[in-house]
Amino acid sequence: MHEDDEVSGRVTLAAVAKEAGVSMPTVSKVLNGRSDVSPTTRDRVERLLQDRGYRRRAQSAPRSPLVELVFHELESIWAMELIRGVEGVARRNGATVVLTESGTRHAPAPEWLDGVLRRRPLGVVLVFSLLPEDVKRRLRAAGIPFVVIDPAGDPDPDVPSVGSANWAGGLAATRHLTELGHERIAIVTGPEDMLCSLARLDGYRSAMAMAGLEPDPRLTRFGDFHVQGGFEHAMSLLEGPDRPTAVFAGSDLQALGVLEAARVKGLRVPEDLSVVGYDDVPLAQWSSPPLTTVHQPLKHMAEEATRMLLQPGDPGKAAQRIELATHLVVRQSTGRPAGA
Amino acid sequence: MHEDDEVSGRVTLAAVAKEAGVSMPTVSKVLNGRSDVSPTTRDRVERLLQDRGYRRRAQSAPRSPLVELVFHELESIWAMELIRGVEGVARRNGATVVLTESGTRHAPAPEWLDGVLRRRPLGVVLVFSLLPEDVKRRLRAAGIPFVVIDPAGDPDPDVPSVGSANWAGGLAATRHLTELGHERIAIVTGPEDMLCSLARLDGYRSAMAMAGLEPDPRLTRFGDFHVQGGFEHAMSLLEGPDRPTAVFAGSDLQALGVLEAARVKGLRVPEDLSVVGYDDVPLAQWSSPPLTTVHQPLKHMAEEATRMLLQPGDPGKAAQRIELATHLVVRQSTGRPAGA
Repeated sequence: MHEDDEVSGRVTLAAVAKEAGVSMPTVSKVLNGRSDVSPTTRDRVERLLQDRGYRRRAQSAPRSPLVELVFHELESIWAMELIRGVEGVARRNGATVVLTESGTRHAPAPEWLDGVLRRRPLGVVLVFSLLPEDVKRRLRAAGIPFVVIDPAGDPDPDVPSVGSANWAGGLAATRHLTELGHERIAIVTGPEDMLCSLARLDGYRSAMAMAGLEPDPRLTRFGDFHVQGGFEHAMSLLEGPDRPTAVFAGSDLQALGVLEAARVKGLRVPEDLSVVGYDDVPLAQWSSPPLTTVHQPLKHMAEEATRMLLQPGDPGKAAQRIELATHLVVRQSTGRPAGA
Repeated sequence: MHEDDEVSGRVTLAAVAKEAGVSMPTVSKVLNGRSDVSPTTRDRVERLLQDRGYRRRAQSAPRSPLVELVFHELESIWAMELIRGVEGVARRNGATVVLTESGTRHAPAPEWLDGVLRRRPLGVVLVFSLLPEDVKRRLRAAGIPFVVIDPAGDPDPDVPSVGSANWAGGLAATRHLTELGHERIAIVTGPEDMLCSLARLDGYRSAMAMAGLEPDPRLTRFGDFHVQGGFEHAMSLLEGPDRPTAVFAGSDLQALGVLEAARVKGLRVPEDLSVVGYDDVPLAQWSSPPLTTVHQPLKHMAEEATRMLLQPGDPGKAAQRIELATHLVVRQSTGRPAGA
């Protein structure tokens, strides 16, 4: 990628070596992620490479037929679908997947990056929200393309990324409930500091407005995307006489917590309470009753991200953001409210 | 591994080249998994290497800090737990995981093996029941250790493997039910051609015998380890007046099918029907009600398998089989039968 706007690699490297006060072999070591370079030298060389607009030529950098996939948390219920998507496209392109769990929610750990530069993969798929500048700089200097899969919907503008349509998903979930005749509809969305939670909440509000309904602020809750949070919010929402007849849970795990709260309260789903999830992870079809939910195309998102790496379009094209459509999957956890 | 009983690699390779009627570089290519050797030549050289007892010396074969993990099916609900186990131990040992989905239930595809021989990983973890002879031969000739994770309990005697105690698991699940006072206990075990299904069934029978109960043969079913199979068997088991008061489902997915059948039939769990699963996959704690199940230590199995590769014991030791203990996790899907 970006070969078009590249000046001759040779000249640039020599100039960078001179300016950094190091030898050409040292610049080479930096480019290859070798560990026998001091961190300060590496940092200085990398910054100069970036400032001088150096992009490694594809032909000068032999690649291993590997696609790197990095997660901050393999425990996530999303992980398996994403792995399957990346693995399938990589395999069809003759490449093998290298999998790492690394770092915090926002950034991979530094050791990981050294390994990537040594392995020289065809590209890197990152499941992180924001990438630190030095990660981007080092990958770019080494000519290794990267794409972020970002289901949280909080993309870094200068990094190619794949997400999904959260606002439209929240709208579809809530419209389904208003069309069934529900008026008292609660929402348990995700954490308040994640854009995907806010987008789903705004979709809910718009659908309520479209149905001429005023959302009761007591029925809006911010969860943590986990079962226990869904359970606790639902236990409190389902208390009292004017309880909601439907809950839009912002994730399937939260929806499972709502189902369990309904069971504990002796409420039948969907006769006494309708529940809509979000994500359509495999277990959504196996809950009791099977869950109506918004399908987030996780596997497809991973496939698109891997294709962006392996089949790049115009070199020099600006960073892309792709948002894939979500759609509602109606199963058995939703129905008309009693008396409607 | 096996360096002790190795004769000098040099001599053996020269002798093999001579006997095979090829040059030393050709033998070298075969050892390195290069594709520019005809399949017949490769086969001849590999067989001779095996017959002459050639084992590549560890020091003569530089290794990449990679652990290869191969699945026949990433879709399995087990996959994520196994990946997490392998990834954690690999990372703590400074290695990275290469992940492949390949081949059929029993054997990885041939392209995969070529890639492994080129990458020269520290070792290979295979999630397959039986390995074809040529896969074992080629990995051994290249000096690459391998371990099979075999939750199905059907191990190849000459391959190191990690499994779990299926009979004891079946016994524990059923004893829990007899101790609660159940007498009409059904079992939906796995497919009839898998040893793990038979071991769990035998554990059930022994527990019934220990409680002085005669199992009703109509209450023994062979499932497919999937939700739908569990649902269908349960729908038929729960018909009629002398229905069982408890079902031991041979997997958590089958147990979810039983829970759904109970819901459809209007039976409360556990008041009208007790249900025990098997595996304790993450979703078992999120079913409604949370599932009593036999914990199969999938992550721990994967960790042990990876340790066997990265921290081998005595070289030259015979193939090992480790079976990790299972244990019952009591949640809310089991209780005393009505009237007990």
